[in-house]
Amino acid sequence: MDIIKSCFTNYGFQPIETPSFENSETLMGKYGEEGDRLIFKILNSGDFLRKVNDVMMTEKDSIKITSKISEKALRYDLTVPFARYVVQHQNDITFPFKRYQIQPVWRADRPQKGRFREFFQCDADVVGSKSLWQEVELVQLYDAVFSKLKLNGATIKMNNRKILSGIAEVIGAEDKLIDFTVALDKLDKIGEDGVKKEMREKGISESAIEKVQPLFSMQGTANEQLESLKDLLSASQVGMQGIEELSFIINKVSQLGLETATLAIDVTLARGLNYYTGAIFEVSAPEGVSMGSIGGGGRYDDLTGIFGMKDVSGVGISFGLDRIYLVLEELDLFPSTVTANTKVLFINFGEAESLYAMKAIKQLRAKGINAELYPDNAKMGKQMGYADKRDIPYTILAGGNEMEAGTYTLKNMKSGEQDTVQLNGVIQILS
Amino acid sequence: MDIIKSCFTNYGFQPIETPSFENSETLMGKYGEEGDRLIFKILNSGDFLRKVNDVMMTEKDSIKITSKISEKALRYDLTVPFARYVVQHQNDITFPFKRYQIQPVWRADRPQKGRFREFFQCDADVVGSKSLWQEVELVQLYDAVFSKLKLNGATIKMNNRKILSGIAEVIGAEDKLIDFTVALDKLDKIGEDGVKKEMREKGISESAIEKVQPLFSMQGTANEQLESLKDLLSASQVGMQGIEELSFIINKVSQLGLETATLAIDVTLARGLNYYTGAIFEVSAPEGVSMGSIGGGGRYDDLTGIFGMKDVSGVGISFGLDRIYLVLEELDLFPSTVTANTKVLFINFGEAESLYAMKAIKQLRAKGINAELYPDNAKMGKQMGYADKRDIPYTILAGGNEMEAGTYTLKNMKSGEQDTVQLNGVIQILS
Repeated sequence: MDIIKSCFTNYGFQPIETPSFENSETLMGKYGEEGDRLIFKILNSGDFLRKVNDVMMTEKDSIKITSKISEKALRYDLTVPFARYVVQHQNDITFPFKRYQIQPVWRADRPQKGRFREFFQCDADVVGSKSLWQEVELVQLYDAVFSKLKLNGATIKMNNRKILSGIAEVIGAEDKLIDFTVALDKLDKIGEDGVKKEMREKGISESAIEKVQPLFSMQGTANEQLESLKDLLSASQVGMQGIEELSFIINKVSQLGLETATLAIDVTLARGLNYYTGAIFEVSAPEGVSMGSIGGGGRYDDLTGIFGMKDVSGVGISFGLDRIYLVLEELDLFPSTVTANTKVLFINFGEAESLYAMKAIKQLRAKGINAELYPDNAKMGKQMGYADKRDIPYTILAGGNEMEAGTYTLKNMKSGEQDTVQLNGVIQILS
Repeated sequence: MDIIKSCFTNYGFQPIETPSFENSETLMGKYGEEGDRLIFKILNSGDFLRKVNDVMMTEKDSIKITSKISEKALRYDLTVPFARYVVQHQNDITFPFKRYQIQPVWRADRPQKGRFREFFQCDADVVGSKSLWQEVELVQLYDAVFSKLKLNGATIKMNNRKILSGIAEVIGAEDKLIDFTVALDKLDKIGEDGVKKEMREKGISESAIEKVQPLFSMQGTANEQLESLKDLLSASQVGMQGIEELSFIINKVSQLGLETATLAIDVTLARGLNYYTGAIFEVSAPEGVSMGSIGGGGRYDDLTGIFGMKDVSGVGISFGLDRIYLVLEELDLFPSTVTANTKVLFINFGEAESLYAMKAIKQLRAKGINAELYPDNAKMGKQMGYADKRDIPYTILAGGNEMEAGTYTLKNMKSGEQDTVQLNGVIQILS
């Protein structure tokens, strides 16, 4: 999270946090029927049944009673609270508004491996500008974060809603678009004939399949692929606009260069179809790691419309923190101690020795070296065991001899080596 | 929070986080009747009324029905979840266990100025050691945090539950102890006679008041005050033990020295009387700032007893983040921008110029300089206004001339000064 945050501010994004609670009406109806069910509702306090009439009590209709006994709910994602925030503070916000938000969300799902009832979401969005430079920056931002995490070889896949609209025009039916992209997505696995067979089964016409023939041979560089798309969608105005947008982004990114990620066109990418209006992003983990997407996002032209503020274009990306965590773990990319661990433990030999130790500890701490004293004059084995279990790399043994000489015996817990040095020496070794 | 966290790890405390939800039975009954009422309950999902029988539905008893329709609740403080955590993970934890926790808690209070339904608590505790060195360290930790926050002149007041028990013995009744300390606390305001009058009104006997006469003349250094206490409590074994503990802590702290805080004895300090068993801490803001305590804590010998794990002694302190925030604000101690703000905004003059800008931005970001491009080729005034409103200290104007010469015109937004330099010059100025 620290790495992600530092990249966000490096790119000019500012943090916001919103309350855990939203009014129920802010959330309900925004995530579909399934979503409504999975929203955690907070029971009103006090005599919450007072507002429920006796007829309703007899009916025992849980759904009907909910709105009478619960007015607040826990946030379900960061997007809707963000939209509410933008609308509410529209007069105080400087647009374009670049914000990031890393907070937990809650979902009343059955908990299982990799699915929690409370988990962190991590979003970066810009609202109030239609500039495609934002998309360019978000690709760079993905690249920066994954490079800093040493998660080299991530693929940032891009598509554009307008290209999908163009394809829908070509195949003659928007309602077949999902079936179409799902089938096309299997090209690598089941081959051209397999895909075409599936398309026919889904009711896509022979003439439509013929028209989109170029999609089956999308190969070569991004620019070559864009040329294929131009051939295919030349008759569709919206489709051509999508290609132009995608070209701009790919072109600029290629001129600026990426560190470790790869940017690729994927016309089968259709996430958030009813939501995104322009660019669509999805990030897949480095090859060889079996994990779904570790990030995604896109441009939406009407985030705040649900709250009555029209025509606010935005574009955003999110990071799948839980999955990124699992990938880092699988690839053994976490440092052995992520949090700043204690660097040195002073062994406790009694009161006078402890005071001697505490004076040194004070100096070490002032130098930013994390140090602690074992609190009790316990057996040596127990104290050493504590250092071991806590992964503390150094111990200091300072008894009567050291006190007299004004020295400290510093033990490297890994190598077992010991050095008797003055405090300056300790600071030098531990810094 | 960053400063507090860095001090915590500097002192060997490790972070833990617990889920927002606890089982209702974990929380209920732990905070008294008022607390039970203020705990936010989560409505069960699905058909939550199924488990409620028809008789209960007709009765409409909100309290009785609560446990049938709600199994989870939001954490109310960090102490009970921590106790639950220690008991649950007792076999995996290395004791003494030094943990800190900074997380929001929720209370169904009526929101008002300075009181929120969601707010952060910030605790540091050590469990599994009775060593008084922990108390010494916690005093140092308070001093370190407040000094780093530049909140100089905080007073760390200390008392000991055992001294209070000794006083109770002397006045002849434990049940009068609160009345006694409340009255004594007014010594500065209403004088010795006023205090004695109030004590008599509360039913404290004349002979008791006579016996505790030394408390009215507690003056001088900490050591002199400790001597007065010894005279007073010489007949009370528990009282003398409390004095010994307090002496140890005050002595050691004085030998180690504090940076900016003052440690003081306050025998009227009785917070958490039913909870603390040894040291009691309370921190007051620097003189002249009207604010209640900005921190407090103490030693408890039975934190985990409520969950069936006996004899685990612990000692902890908490920081009142909201109040500390208000004090810092009142004393104007916050830096002008707390979060890492954008250092430089590149003005957008069009596509070619933007690409030129983005190439420079990439270099600046790699050097850790937070930089951004205004996304649209808007009017200069609008772009400059954005930099102003965002408090961005520098802008860069790079048009055709600069592009040709490979330079950048850097404008200091405060002084209005402009310099046309190469990228290295920009990096040098902004670093």
